[in-house]
Amino acid sequence: MITLNNNFHLLPESYLFSIVRQRLDAYRQNHPEDEIIRMDIGDVTRPIAPAAVAAMHAAVDELARTESFHGYGPEQGYLFLREAIADYDYRRLGIAITPDEIFISDGAKSDLGNLGELFSHRARVAVPDPGYPVYADDNIIDGRNRTDAPIIHLPLTPENHFVPPTPDRTPDLIYLCYPNNPTGASISRHDLSRWVDYARRVGAVIIYDSAYEAYIRDASLPHSIYEIEGAEEVAIEVRSFSKTGGFTGIRCGYTVVPHALKGCYADGTVAELHRLWMRRQSTKFNGASYISQRGAAALYTPEGRRQVEESIDYYMENARLLREGMAAAGYEAFGGENAPYVWVRTPDGMTSWEFFDHLLERYQLSSTPGAGFGTNGEGFVRLTAFNTRSNTLAALRRLRD
Amino acid sequence: MITLNNNFHLLPESYLFSIVRQRLDAYRQNHPEDEIIRMDIGDVTRPIAPAAVAAMHAAVDELARTESFHGYGPEQGYLFLREAIADYDYRRLGIAITPDEIFISDGAKSDLGNLGELFSHRARVAVPDPGYPVYADDNIIDGRNRTDAPIIHLPLTPENHFVPPTPDRTPDLIYLCYPNNPTGASISRHDLSRWVDYARRVGAVIIYDSAYEAYIRDASLPHSIYEIEGAEEVAIEVRSFSKTGGFTGIRCGYTVVPHALKGCYADGTVAELHRLWMRRQSTKFNGASYISQRGAAALYTPEGRRQVEESIDYYMENARLLREGMAAAGYEAFGGENAPYVWVRTPDGMTSWEFFDHLLERYQLSSTPGAGFGTNGEGFVRLTAFNTRSNTLAALRRLRD
Repeated sequence: MITLNNNFHLLPESYLFSIVRQRLDAYRQNHPEDEIIRMDIGDVTRPIAPAAVAAMHAAVDELARTESFHGYGPEQGYLFLREAIADYDYRRLGIAITPDEIFISDGAKSDLGNLGELFSHRARVAVPDPGYPVYADDNIIDGRNRTDAPIIHLPLTPENHFVPPTPDRTPDLIYLCYPNNPTGASISRHDLSRWVDYARRVGAVIIYDSAYEAYIRDASLPHSIYEIEGAEEVAIEVRSFSKTGGFTGIRCGYTVVPHALKGCYADGTVAELHRLWMRRQSTKFNGASYISQRGAAALYTPEGRRQVEESIDYYMENARLLREGMAAAGYEAFGGENAPYVWVRTPDGMTSWEFFDHLLERYQLSSTPGAGFGTNGEGFVRLTAFNTRSNTLAALRRLRD
Repeated sequence: MITLNNNFHLLPESYLFSIVRQRLDAYRQNHPEDEIIRMDIGDVTRPIAPAAVAAMHAAVDELARTESFHGYGPEQGYLFLREAIADYDYRRLGIAITPDEIFISDGAKSDLGNLGELFSHRARVAVPDPGYPVYADDNIIDGRNRTDAPIIHLPLTPENHFVPPTPDRTPDLIYLCYPNNPTGASISRHDLSRWVDYARRVGAVIIYDSAYEAYIRDASLPHSIYEIEGAEEVAIEVRSFSKTGGFTGIRCGYTVVPHALKGCYADGTVAELHRLWMRRQSTKFNGASYISQRGAAALYTPEGRRQVEESIDYYMENARLLREGMAAAGYEAFGGENAPYVWVRTPDGMTSWEFFDHLLERYQLSSTPGAGFGTNGEGFVRLTAFNTRSNTLAALRRLRD
């Protein structure tokens, strides 16, 4: 019998959101009449932006005719989309990221899950705790949670405003996520500079998950890690169209790997990470759907941008209602000001799974238990602002009445 | 500076088809007036099936309206597509594969590239030579081409009719591909049984790439490895919609991991590979595009099936023309009877890259040099039947005149 990758043995049995889904399914079976308001998984409810709809129809029609049909696209993604990203997401902010440094993917989750392949199996990893489970799980699968060098957990707590101090043990690979999932916190330019400087000093690479960048409201906050001087030598940035254009089901995101970012092989040879990621993507990936890429590019047109902003305004109003409503209902709530998540402290010393059950059974509200995001998530649940306005208001009414 | 995955150091610098593309670009720059007929990469030229076009338009419209919008789908893929596959591709042939054993992906290349993660880094691997470069490259990236256990190359030669004998050194993981890329050969039920029996005897797992299954013409040939008794205990089957519905740019495929297929951890615990693949996919993947999945499902409707068959008839007529035309032009040609590829022996002892240059410079025909597929591919080039009829005929005219 074949020997399996033993690291799967070390993983929690199921992916967090699969467990939440199973619990909800079980509840529904026992209470078929109840209407659950879902505030657990970060899935959007507004339809995709009309500009993207039109572009995707046009793309389908292009592929439907012999004269305009085309098949395999570049593994790195189409230039029309990479140029739109470089222009709007970077050049506009004075950041010198070129289209060649941008890789289009089928979503941030795939990239966050696959980037670990570029590094030595002995790389020491630091992940935010609480954090998106993919960061740690991918590294566990790759064998980087070793007894002699376990994954470093960077604590995100109310006391440090959910921006961890640099760790005592030195990591090689650091995951950071701002605006933060799950706490809804943001990072100041000062704190982000502190992390970039730290990475430069210790020779670490930062994987910067900025899937929620478009939700930043405070003009003083950095939108990209590359706004920080020298970051292009230490950071990979991962972005998504899921929470801007409503692309959770359409699958498109991108990852920036600057040419200035380098690592070395065991024999000391220095190589650009760009080259490794290009090799990885051209070997194990065949490009994102042409239709999705055309849809994503449409989000950068003037109408597309306006539609994205409208959606974000809508969700951020939900976030405000949630944050204030939870506070008014007597809960301690964090986040929701520059991010679509509200992080709620459990009352009366309940564990996060107990509070999950309580919200579900008493109010038919689904949440995500903080413990699923890491040890420091215990004592909290995450609520998302991605439901409809009427459901968000209904949820708050249930809590109040 | 961070230490890189040293296995990238051991890979060929570029992915085969990237090199071919670079060579063609260089030729075009020097000869802008020449019209190259592309018979290199296996990319289709016919537009996507009208049934899929209609289904994808409908899917875009669904996502465009609040009341029918939905976001994240199941990581494993939508049940409507998994049921269609189970029905048509398996139940119809009397094979007991259930929808739960089918995983929808963004294409066969991704799955073939990622499946290696399930196995021990010390697993011994056997790949067909010549073969699709992804099989070996993925395992090199994963560290399985070790000096003490190098990857086993299974020779596909005219002498063995491109069906290799079982190897002397015993592998744990075996890649097979029939109808074969690049040789265009097929495998008989007898030979496939021999491989399944071998895998059962030595405790190996077969990854069976049957991306070209729909091109089988000979009624005696097996369409699925699961037609062979006991294969569900040793085989994973990978399929694609690229060469049936014209989905190369749309990205959709699937992988079958039967529950009966098991492996063991280092401590002897036995586990279903199904569970590991589910965990991998739910951790590092977020499902294929909803639009692509709706398009793929439409290929299983009566019109969709008829349209797919028409396309395949069209390409197979190209394959016949190519095979017979190459023979008439004095070349020794293999394949093209149950597969869309024709495998041509280079004349006069030319290397495959020399013949590639010869075909390009003399006739403005692009091919794929056999050496790019492995040592045993030296002395051959691959031609694809995926171009248009008129280009296929034009190519043969150029060779003849």
